[in-house]
Amino acid sequence: MSELVLSEIDQGVLTLTFNRPERLNAWTDALGRRYFDLLAEAERNPDVRAVVVTGAGRGFCSGADFETLGALRDGTYDHTPDPRPATYPTTIGKPVIAAVNGACAGLGMVHALVCDLVFTAEDAKWTTAFARRGLIAEYGLAWILPRLIGQQRALDILLSGRVFTGAEARELGLAVRAVPGDRLLDETWAYARELAVHSSPASMAVIKRQAWRDWDVTLAESEKAAVAEMLASFGRPDFAEGVSAFLERRPPRFPPLG
Amino acid sequence: MSELVLSEIDQGVLTLTFNRPERLNAWTDALGRRYFDLLAEAERNPDVRAVVVTGAGRGFCSGADFETLGALRDGTYDHTPDPRPATYPTTIGKPVIAAVNGACAGLGMVHALVCDLVFTAEDAKWTTAFARRGLIAEYGLAWILPRLIGQQRALDILLSGRVFTGAEARELGLAVRAVPGDRLLDETWAYARELAVHSSPASMAVIKRQAWRDWDVTLAESEKAAVAEMLASFGRPDFAEGVSAFLERRPPRFPPLG
Amino acid sequence: MSELVLSEIDQGVLTLTFNRPERLNAWTDALGRRYFDLLAEAERNPDVRAVVVTGAGRGFCSGADFETLGALRDGTYDHTPDPRPATYPTTIGKPVIAAVNGACAGLGMVHALVCDLVFTAEDAKWTTAFARRGLIAEYGLAWILPRLIGQQRALDILLSGRVFTGAEARELGLAVRAVPGDRLLDETWAYARELAVHSSPASMAVIKRQAWRDWDVTLAESEKAAVAEMLASFGRPDFAEGVSAFLERRPPRFPPLG
Repeated sequence: MSELVLSEIDQGVLTLTFNRPERLNAWTDALGRRYFDLLAEAERNPDVRAVVVTGAGRGFCSGADFETLGALRDGTYDHTPDPRPATYPTTIGKPVIAAVNGACAGLGMVHALVCDLVFTAEDAKWTTAFARRGLIAEYGLAWILPRLIGQQRALDILLSGRVFTGAEARELGLAVRAVPGDRLLDETWAYARELAVHSSPASMAVIKRQAWRDWDVTLAESEKAAVAEMLASFGRPDFAEGVSAFLERRPPRFPPLG
Repeated sequence: MSELVLSEIDQGVLTLTFNRPERLNAWTDALGRRYFDLLAEAERNPDVRAVVVTGAGRGFCSGADFETLGALRDGTYDHTPDPRPATYPTTIGKPVIAAVNGACAGLGMVHALVCDLVFTAEDAKWTTAFARRGLIAEYGLAWILPRLIGQQRALDILLSGRVFTGAEARELGLAVRAVPGDRLLDETWAYARELAVHSSPASMAVIKRQAWRDWDVTLAESEKAAVAEMLASFGRPDFAEGVSAFLERRPPRFPPLG
Repeated sequence: MSELVLSEIDQGVLTLTFNRPERLNAWTDALGRRYFDLLAEAERNPDVRAVVVTGAGRGFCSGADFETLGALRDGTYDHTPDPRPATYPTTIGKPVIAAVNGACAGLGMVHALVCDLVFTAEDAKWTTAFARRGLIAEYGLAWILPRLIGQQRALDILLSGRVFTGAEARELGLAVRAVPGDRLLDETWAYARELAVHSSPASMAVIKRQAWRDWDVTLAESEKAAVAEMLASFGRPDFAEGVSAFLERRPPRFPPLG
């Protein structure tokens, strides 16, 4: 039996690959559990500084598996929920970057957009799909989408369930980069590698927590918390190394996340 | 006396047309009351699956009527407030799409932007106008604009009250589409018709509620509520029909909103 | 000893210029205190209707001064904090517009983005820089950036600390205008002058407060507060003058902020 999610570490960058290519990597409970287990390992592994998530074959993730959907419709689905929510990637302390290589639909779009950053193939097909299946904006997508692309653009793609390309996904703001499919993995990996080399792991962990949490606080609260985080950062070796490397005009040697 | 708001249903799409063309559809209490009464009817009418709102003649809505403004300035205005707030369209369970055919100013911009989606004529003239009249960001616009187009762009058009075209409105993110004026109604109607045909009315009602409400909750709360909504959706006929139509590669036949 | 911040009023527009050009206007406590003192004066001065903030020489502000950073790293920094937070410009009642003429890094980006509006030279170099120094998203930037440019674009520039141009800053939404460097001050001043001439000072003060506060309230609360603000505006001379000027097709003569 092949692995549901492939895993490879290279120079600080962990690449996780959904591996059900014959089903466009349609989501199953088992695949999701394996993916989150590997993220939990990445969180603890000092060799991992950034994570890239992509799909094997032609798709990124086409959404919930047809068999799952059919069983749900027929009331015969035997579901053992993972205690980790779909937004789990937002809570780990290392940057997670989706490389959307192809079909990205429904639950697949959820799993792309709970990553911190998204790179997409220009010709990847994207769709929320939910409204066309009698479903709703699943797993926090009604929270994330308006904060990524604004209220109207979110409603456009949620209400219509229309299909659009990766190039439009980039224009809408669903992805920070859209590139030709044959360069997608290289460009995403290169960006992740830059984070692994030049960005302090401790800084990235704090910044990620700030950016996801500060939607829930006032500007005054955010600023006050940031001052406390800044004072804490002054005491970390990352700050001494970051300033020294900058003043000495050399690449930094940041310690791994503790 | 002609009707203040024209109303026509065609294939699931209700088109409401502000009808004071000789005043660029300037807003009056009576026009607003009639418009909201028609939306309330649309909410109850199973034949309506999507709503298009536009203006008769050259304007969409040029803002509060001059006579109203003059009477307000002189302290002689006799106002009977509608108990329904200006944001009423966000609370009904069917998608409401503004087709901004021309002048869209002040209160007119409020009524465009409390719609779920906006299509605009490329050459329509837009302006918040408030700061130039000694007024303020009216009726929730200070909440909506930053969530549509970001904090700075919102401040740009609110503080300056400058006039801009529909083409720029689209670039700013105030509208999802800008099209030549002579194609505006056809294109808006065609989009609304797509929603009426392909999107589940029950799904659209839930998604719309999620998208407007989830600005007020945390990501964890949004996700938790979405799981409950998803489980509820599994029990609705829309889900069975949506999955069956998808697997059978045929258009869905969703029931009207109950 | 030269002035740390230059100050000049012309036709209602106050221009403040960070004046440590030999250090690309790197931030020091003394410079910050002087800048905020001048903003406090501007708040009280009826001759000031809009404020432009820029930098002398080639930079806008390159961030915390190297000597400050070195002393912080070595634990020898003697800091007397200003009781006014970095977000102080958002709390004064007059519009503050940054004209980013060159390097805008770290703390410099904070001080640009707590302005209400940003104009930038196309070739100005921007960077958050924090993650590359072992620091965090300082002083509310983790709150402001996602609300300016969306969650992903914010994480892109925060996690990577990459350098980008003013032209990209404009595309990202960090600035409302990007112009050739030799036209920057003229264009920013002209925009500020438009505010001084055509926008009611009372309106701008209320609108600014609304736009920064309404991130913390629900749409219903925003709308309710806006109705109260609108009723208050009806009683101000600015409204009478704004309507009269509009009906008489002449420029308004708004009173200064009281």
